[in-house]
Amino acid sequence: MDFAPDATTTALTGRVRAFLHERVLPAEPVLEEQLAATPGEWGSRPVVRELQAQARAEGLWNLFLPDGAAPGTTTRTRRGAGLTNLQYASVAELTGWSPRLAPVAFNCAAPDTGNMELLAHFGTPEQQEHWLDPLLDARIRSAFCMTEPDVASSDASQITTRIRRDGDDYVISGRKWFATGAMNPDARLLVVMGKTDPDGPRHRQQSMVLVGRDAPGVTVVRPLSVFGYDDRDHGGHAEIVFDDVRVPASNLLGAEGDGFAIAQARLGPGRIHHCMRALGTAERALALVRERARTRSAFGGPLADKGVVREWVAESRIELEALRLLVLKTAWLMDTVGNREAMTEIQAIKIAVPRAVQRILDRAMQVFGAAGISADQPLAEMFAGARALRLADGPDEVHLASLGRAELRRP
Amino acid sequence: MDFAPDATTTALTGRVRAFLHERVLPAEPVLEEQLAATPGEWGSRPVVRELQAQARAEGLWNLFLPDGAAPGTTTRTRRGAGLTNLQYASVAELTGWSPRLAPVAFNCAAPDTGNMELLAHFGTPEQQEHWLDPLLDARIRSAFCMTEPDVASSDASQITTRIRRDGDDYVISGRKWFATGAMNPDARLLVVMGKTDPDGPRHRQQSMVLVGRDAPGVTVVRPLSVFGYDDRDHGGHAEIVFDDVRVPASNLLGAEGDGFAIAQARLGPGRIHHCMRALGTAERALALVRERARTRSAFGGPLADKGVVREWVAESRIELEALRLLVLKTAWLMDTVGNREAMTEIQAIKIAVPRAVQRILDRAMQVFGAAGISADQPLAEMFAGARALRLADGPDEVHLASLGRAELRRP
Amino acid sequence: MDFAPDATTTALTGRVRAFLHERVLPAEPVLEEQLAATPGEWGSRPVVRELQAQARAEGLWNLFLPDGAAPGTTTRTRRGAGLTNLQYASVAELTGWSPRLAPVAFNCAAPDTGNMELLAHFGTPEQQEHWLDPLLDARIRSAFCMTEPDVASSDASQITTRIRRDGDDYVISGRKWFATGAMNPDARLLVVMGKTDPDGPRHRQQSMVLVGRDAPGVTVVRPLSVFGYDDRDHGGHAEIVFDDVRVPASNLLGAEGDGFAIAQARLGPGRIHHCMRALGTAERALALVRERARTRSAFGGPLADKGVVREWVAESRIELEALRLLVLKTAWLMDTVGNREAMTEIQAIKIAVPRAVQRILDRAMQVFGAAGISADQPLAEMFAGARALRLADGPDEVHLASLGRAELRRP
Amino acid sequence: MDFAPDATTTALTGRVRAFLHERVLPAEPVLEEQLAATPGEWGSRPVVRELQAQARAEGLWNLFLPDGAAPGTTTRTRRGAGLTNLQYASVAELTGWSPRLAPVAFNCAAPDTGNMELLAHFGTPEQQEHWLDPLLDARIRSAFCMTEPDVASSDASQITTRIRRDGDDYVISGRKWFATGAMNPDARLLVVMGKTDPDGPRHRQQSMVLVGRDAPGVTVVRPLSVFGYDDRDHGGHAEIVFDDVRVPASNLLGAEGDGFAIAQARLGPGRIHHCMRALGTAERALALVRERARTRSAFGGPLADKGVVREWVAESRIELEALRLLVLKTAWLMDTVGNREAMTEIQAIKIAVPRAVQRILDRAMQVFGAAGISADQPLAEMFAGARALRLADGPDEVHLASLGRAELRRP
Repeated sequence: MDFAPDATTTALTGRVRAFLHERVLPAEPVLEEQLAATPGEWGSRPVVRELQAQARAEGLWNLFLPDGAAPGTTTRTRRGAGLTNLQYASVAELTGWSPRLAPVAFNCAAPDTGNMELLAHFGTPEQQEHWLDPLLDARIRSAFCMTEPDVASSDASQITTRIRRDGDDYVISGRKWFATGAMNPDARLLVVMGKTDPDGPRHRQQSMVLVGRDAPGVTVVRPLSVFGYDDRDHGGHAEIVFDDVRVPASNLLGAEGDGFAIAQARLGPGRIHHCMRALGTAERALALVRERARTRSAFGGPLADKGVVREWVAESRIELEALRLLVLKTAWLMDTVGNREAMTEIQAIKIAVPRAVQRILDRAMQVFGAAGISADQPLAEMFAGARALRLADGPDEVHLASLGRAELRRP
Repeated sequence: MDFAPDATTTALTGRVRAFLHERVLPAEPVLEEQLAATPGEWGSRPVVRELQAQARAEGLWNLFLPDGAAPGTTTRTRRGAGLTNLQYASVAELTGWSPRLAPVAFNCAAPDTGNMELLAHFGTPEQQEHWLDPLLDARIRSAFCMTEPDVASSDASQITTRIRRDGDDYVISGRKWFATGAMNPDARLLVVMGKTDPDGPRHRQQSMVLVGRDAPGVTVVRPLSVFGYDDRDHGGHAEIVFDDVRVPASNLLGAEGDGFAIAQARLGPGRIHHCMRALGTAERALALVRERARTRSAFGGPLADKGVVREWVAESRIELEALRLLVLKTAWLMDTVGNREAMTEIQAIKIAVPRAVQRILDRAMQVFGAAGISADQPLAEMFAGARALRLADGPDEVHLASLGRAELRRP
Repeated sequence: MDFAPDATTTALTGRVRAFLHERVLPAEPVLEEQLAATPGEWGSRPVVRELQAQARAEGLWNLFLPDGAAPGTTTRTRRGAGLTNLQYASVAELTGWSPRLAPVAFNCAAPDTGNMELLAHFGTPEQQEHWLDPLLDARIRSAFCMTEPDVASSDASQITTRIRRDGDDYVISGRKWFATGAMNPDARLLVVMGKTDPDGPRHRQQSMVLVGRDAPGVTVVRPLSVFGYDDRDHGGHAEIVFDDVRVPASNLLGAEGDGFAIAQARLGPGRIHHCMRALGTAERALALVRERARTRSAFGGPLADKGVVREWVAESRIELEALRLLVLKTAWLMDTVGNREAMTEIQAIKIAVPRAVQRILDRAMQVFGAAGISADQPLAEMFAGARALRLADGPDEVHLASLGRAELRRP
Repeated sequence: MDFAPDATTTALTGRVRAFLHERVLPAEPVLEEQLAATPGEWGSRPVVRELQAQARAEGLWNLFLPDGAAPGTTTRTRRGAGLTNLQYASVAELTGWSPRLAPVAFNCAAPDTGNMELLAHFGTPEQQEHWLDPLLDARIRSAFCMTEPDVASSDASQITTRIRRDGDDYVISGRKWFATGAMNPDARLLVVMGKTDPDGPRHRQQSMVLVGRDAPGVTVVRPLSVFGYDDRDHGGHAEIVFDDVRVPASNLLGAEGDGFAIAQARLGPGRIHHCMRALGTAERALALVRERARTRSAFGGPLADKGVVREWVAESRIELEALRLLVLKTAWLMDTVGNREAMTEIQAIKIAVPRAVQRILDRAMQVFGAAGISADQPLAEMFAGARALRLADGPDEVHLASLGRAELRRP
């Protein structure tokens, strides 16, 4: 057992950290200005493009994509940066310091990362050429259309969207929402989950299909907000209606009935990324709190001298250290024994990290007083993001029950 | 000891409940439409005016204002509805079901209520005629300018705004923020706290002065948001600069040095109102959860059959029942022995209620899934409101330490 | 609504409080000495008899027993002190300050109180004469035999003890445990629940029968401890085997099939008593903490000046005030609308009070350091008692699920 | 970074696990019988001696003692098993499954381990020969006398025990308590902390001296209990008076004024051991819960099917996995960069592990119902042990404040 990062990780995180502090954090107010100047507009602002150009020039690009075989397959991707999940995890954490800018700057932002992984592992050469390469180039963006407004979509058997075979085509009908990023006009690709075989075995009913955003019958109905945030620069969260949308049969990702398995494959690395970013967000909050507590006074002394502030930062530090190790071990398990064997840990971090980060952010807001819940500090928006994570990929309780069931079956 | 409400309360809450369900709740989507139709505009929309007219016609108007003497004074107000704090508490709870519409519909919305109480208890006849009567008529609105961006304002000794006497005038200089409601063009009155005697005894340095919003030197700099919400219809939260603003000396509220005491007097009833409204908000959330849990299914049955949902609603119910009693007892203590003797209870509810309501809302959002954190349900905005309460009138921790200190001094 | 206690309560609690401070608390070290001097012995020590004589002389005797009709019956008891549940509640709280001495001093200790209530409400005149009068005189003690080691007894349908009719007798076979008090040689009466009709409707299978402790076939197998405490002076917690124990049919309490209903009737007042006593225990702990915090120093000042101690006592105070009101309201509901209508509140206090008191005691132990978990302070033993309450009358979770189910059925 | 244990750890834990399951767990009821047969006796029962002989024969002996230099010194011990803290940690966890038998079986029980470490690192050859060798042979036992009843001993500046130089002797006067193990007649050595220089710098006032238990003036006053448990087989917790106890000056451990530093050096490994054992205890509890939940039914199905039981075991599993990693990393830091650099982590585990284990045990007791808090299951006694850990080596809050202060000083 060895808790020291390897040389690749040390070197890479050093470069990413420098980029973060020199380029990304100073760009945050620039983004705010550009957003204020273009109130009605959806999608990335110029500052994002500049950061992407710089990151790409420095070789800090597409780091999320492992250069290996997908779990359960033997197809190796040729396009990745070649990092293990464990190595990439520490990079992902750093991008969490600036969740609106850093992930996209490195072309490592969800949901594109998950979609690119699917294409890398399950896509045909034609699909990869058509969709994956532009995504890896950041020429286009993408969205993942899984959740539906009318059913509890964490139960995949309840999905109502239909994907019917009709000659050489598939015809898609249904309503999806919380398709993150889909308000962005650059989001050319929609990865859509639906049922090709509603009467098949529970986990073989679903398939996944690639749909161009401008296909006839696709209607982006409206944006949804999270707390009061519309995530306009990222591309928001869209409700989309698919009204007999017709795509060629070659747009199927994997085989018919593979939809559930593909979605599951997407979740493993996705949770590592989400959780590590969330921990980075919490580290940013803690750094802000330290600065505030040293410089702000009340009732006769700096906040840093108040017992309750000390307790809060101590509790936050303890939670962060323990949970980071759990996420890193999960990444290591995925690298060494595979997603399936890491299932307990993957569920554990999905449950434990977002709520801990929510707590840490809640305490941080309290230290900042009214400023903490306003837009003058990034805390409230970060809180909304952490809160949303407790619902993303299914509410925590589904995973908690599943983890408990598995634990109770252990000998 | 008797836990049954008196006849006045029973009758009044019956009428208010009916108004709530027949008039206010159906008006919520109307407000949304009117807001969507006038995106750039600050202040009440037409639906609010209609509700106010109806409420006034039914005699459900200004119920918050007690018809008695202020704590520590002998001046009786003639303008109030004559309810005790205990009687009004149950009305306030009902208005919390629709926090954006119900309080304002009955002209019982903060911060106007607190400002009207101050004017009723500490205002001169001229001040009352000039400011109180229009407020009681809802012809104007008001804001309370206490918090400052540059200092922890829960420590009143740190207030930096200066109120200098200059001949027959006071001259005010300083920067305030989170002046709730002040973006509303109807908010003609600003109640401003500042220091008239920075070298005086700690709690006699402050005075309170009435400032017309259009006085030269008053600049409303910008609106602040709370978790992404701008509270546009209510009047938002403003940052305001006072740059040598000159008002006649007769605009002083109470005497020089009374500022701290007046602010404290404002807090007692204010907390009853805030807390009871928050409990009503939680009741609304629980009602929404019940409906959702009965009609939404996952993994083989309605959510209402899931153990975790049952636990959540049970825990919520227990917290609500216990805390409601504590708020009602606090109101009763204020009515019978006065604010000073009720200090422990006032602090207790200020601490305990908002965080309990935050928890209840957090669970409710989880039951609703993605919808719960979106604008399709009122939960996320309600959550932001409850979260803000933990900072309003000073962060909870200040009160917790004070309550603990008092407890440790008990024999 | 009126939160002031009535004159009877005020007068009575004044007398009980005086007795507590003048007689009971000083007797605690005497009990310890008497226990140390007679290590192998089970049952009350002389100091208890002395306190009982004094209390009886002062008319502070059998206060628990209401002088009215049992829920669902019209039989009025003639033997009670005539207090309402609400009035008695405040007395019960005071006895919780000294849980090992005060309840028994006033002849108000569980499980005798519950057994006396059953006899008063459901007993025949002969049963009352034979068992109730000696119990009311404290000439004998009693135990309640419900829980079984082999099944989860909170589910009454799982009870395995059989009560078979045989001519003019009932014959009882089964194994019970945690029969509190049954190690006391004075415990002459065992109230035993078993099944007379195992195939009947779920809640009509059970009956309750009165068994003399010296009936042939009754074997007290062993004492059980709670944490490391054997509760020797009270009478411990016994495991008892009933091996074809034969009693006359007239020993049946109520009718055949009434067992479950009688057990339920026992629970309502029992929970008020348990919860109020637990709150009194917590008040005692808080009083000890105040004293300790003022007189003990560390790191440059008294513990009372440490932020964390202030927070703890503040949190404890808040919880106590809110929960006391909830228990009192429950008592009031039982007095005014009956146990059935008070079911939500009865379950709520059963769940909320013991765990809150456990938290409060846990914090108190922490303030006391090593002394807190030793026998030099009463805290650890009190903690064990509070912890046991979370299991008594069924684990909290059973009640939480039931309360949640009921809440979800509300319109 | 590599989360796989090394070959030494894997091999050793395999052997220890086998010994645990084949020898130690079956010996638990034997210990109970031997204790029941000799109620008045203090000290190890025969079954312990047998286990020790077996463990020693298998080479599973004194594994706790590292074969290297103490932190801050260059003296290498020759007597240890040569394990790193990281390697030993996993062994310590396994011994936590049977906290009363396993640690002592391997001669790895506190407080002897800490005392042996002190002697190995700071003892003179004569001290080592006289005390360390018999301890390593388990021919004698020892106690650590630090805590005093009259002061908050976590603040070492408050220690009142005096160690005065008098010619070639030291003369010790003071009162200590919670000297764990000192009731055991085999506890021949008392390691006593006191002040040699009460006016010296805060952390140089204290010295540590070795005192034979039969030295004139040593009086073992009484045993103390923890939650009703006297820990009789281990040697209990003693209050000891030192009344002008005279020992040769050569009994000083280290130099005058080293007492505080030596005590600190003792804590690092001690916390690793305590925490890992506590995690093992929690694993045992979880194993018991799994078994119970599968075999016990209520309300229509096994407990394993109840949502709340699933949640509990899931939450427990998550906490255990995260905290184990944090303890292991702490051990690794101590091995690689030393105790001083690992201070944050050492404090973090001291705070986080015992309370998590307390929670896990609390839930486990709840699953077991009344049996869980009785002596029929080991849970309640384990709970008492975990609870005591939150006070051992200073209450958690002292460490929390210190950790918070350090965090707030980070750049």
